Amino acid sequence: MTTVDPTDAPSAPASDTLAILGLGLIGGSLMRAASAAGWRVYGYNRSAETVSSALDEGFDAGADLADVVERAAADDALIVLATPVTALDEVIPVVHGQAPDCAVTDVISVKQQVARAMARHAPGQRYVGGHPMAGTAQSGWAAGQTDLFTRAVWAIATDDSADPATWARVARLALDVGSDVIPVASDEHDRAVAAISHLPHLTAAVTAAVGAGDGDLALHLAAGSFRDGTRVAATAPELQRAMLEANRMALLNSLSETIDRLVAARDELRDRGSVETLINDGHRARLRWEELSAAQPRPISGVQIGSPGWQAQLRAQALDGRVWTGQQTA
Amino acid sequence: MTTVDPTDAPSAPASDTLAILGLGLIGGSLMRAASAAGWRVYGYNRSAETVSSALDEGFDAGADLADVVERAAADDALIVLATPVTALDEVIPVVHGQAPDCAVTDVISVKQQVARAMARHAPGQRYVGGHPMAGTAQSGWAAGQTDLFTRAVWAIATDDSADPATWARVARLALDVGSDVIPVASDEHDRAVAAISHLPHLTAAVTAAVGAGDGDLALHLAAGSFRDGTRVAATAPELQRAMLEANRMALLNSLSETIDRLVAARDELRDRGSVETLINDGHRARLRWEELSAAQPRPISGVQIGSPGWQAQLRAQALDGRVWTGQQTA
Repeated sequence: MTTVDPTDAPSAPASDTLAILGLGLIGGSLMRAASAAGWRVYGYNRSAETVSSALDEGFDAGADLADVVERAAADDALIVLATPVTALDEVIPVVHGQAPDCAVTDVISVKQQVARAMARHAPGQRYVGGHPMAGTAQSGWAAGQTDLFTRAVWAIATDDSADPATWARVARLALDVGSDVIPVASDEHDRAVAAISHLPHLTAAVTAAVGAGDGDLALHLAAGSFRDGTRVAATAPELQRAMLEANRMALLNSLSETIDRLVAARDELRDRGSVETLINDGHRARLRWEELSAAQPRPISGVQIGSPGWQAQLRAQALDGRVWTGQQTA
Repeated sequence: MTTVDPTDAPSAPASDTLAILGLGLIGGSLMRAASAAGWRVYGYNRSAETVSSALDEGFDAGADLADVVERAAADDALIVLATPVTALDEVIPVVHGQAPDCAVTDVISVKQQVARAMARHAPGQRYVGGHPMAGTAQSGWAAGQTDLFTRAVWAIATDDSADPATWARVARLALDVGSDVIPVASDEHDRAVAAISHLPHLTAAVTAAVGAGDGDLALHLAAGSFRDGTRVAATAPELQRAMLEANRMALLNSLSETIDRLVAARDELRDRGSVETLINDGHRARLRWEELSAAQPRPISGVQIGSPGWQAQLRAQALDGRVWTGQQTA
């Protein structure tokens, strides 16, 4: 049984090593944030231009994947998969080939598909998935921000099979860069993210497409509701597709519910001249979110990482709205 | 034939009188903005609390509709209907009873229904509708902002029957508070606004409702795409309903197109694992909007307000992306 050293609190200086594979918006922001938090950090990106930008800014990066992974193996670094999900079938075999003993995490927006790719290409390797709920409509290294994860929520896959030492190391990384940790089962994560992160890309896209369909005059008249409601549609299409298509089953459920609700709203508007049900449901949901966002997060308490059933205990407290802050005593 | 005096440019100080009926977010902001621009302004609100807030801030307001309208008649003020559309059947008869010779405009988000209410309760009264494309998720006097209309777009109903002197007066008001004027036919306005302003309320509502349907855990994980995509769902439901339900036919068309596109996206995702069509269409539409928003607006030119066919000439140039700036020479 592995327990967490109480000195692993976020206030203690970090001294771990991080190898980030993929230096786009998320990976690049993590390079900046983890460096600032005291981690030793280096990374890989397939684009020589990105690598050269990172080097110019004083970071440590290379464009040779095998080299970076070999170095991670020598340092026993925590490896972070930060590529689009579509690149995993190329990246993970190199990780498993060169650094089979390294612990691995990721910052990708789906958890089940990454776990399946790890099981396929890196059987037996220590892996605990993660997903920082942060981003902008921009992409690429240049869009990265040191404070992207400050006060964000970082979901960590907390399935019954999760390795406690790896879990604690990933949690420390998230806490060190300023996030609150939410422990969640992989399938539960994917369902929730379909509803609150992937579906909004489809509703933004359809809002933009229907608005523009009425011609430039309509777009000239567009103001705040259009601007905010379509913001994420500005994200590079290939990145949106990689995210959404990797979460197909859960997204299909959310999308079907969306269609059902809109059809009901259309019938109500046509037959009774009213949009009451949908407007009221949406208003109530938004206010609930504002209330939750404004509330001080309550810490998970009384769980010792590595004790029997710790994963289920963390998940249960997270379902109750609590977060892991790393300062818990068992 | 009325022509516009070239000295009526926005740089000339305004000295006209404005009577604003309804001092919520839009009416209250207009009271502040038009006062700042040199107009003599007073207003009516049915809530004594709102009136007292306005008085406390040094504005001129009353809670007796007939009194305020009588005063407008004595001053030959431009009367602005700024109540929810649902109050028009009560307000317009008072306007027509006490001030039948006053010119009337409005700042309500639909044009055909207001024009119908004017024709019903105030036959023959001079009326040119308007719609400033500005707002926030807040409502009420306290949410008002002096600069709400700065760099906004103000649609002015420019039907073939529009009275040129009233049109010019409404346009000057819009220009004086910092907006660009877009001349548009009432039916065209309502179609465009259904697509780019009213539909986003329904897509925001459904995005919020489906997201919250997955429970508080999902809402805890919600980040930027949810926050921005659901912002307008925070608006008071009765205000959203008044807006949307007043534009029923046009909104039904936009909503049906939305459903059709989402059904096609669901089929594509289910059958081919792809969301390419919708994501690409949405991305292209958003970029087109960003391009139009960033461009310097080109002025309408060569139209003399009041000359034969001036309304159609203005509309045609607006369809071509041009705006009325008030400084045009004929």
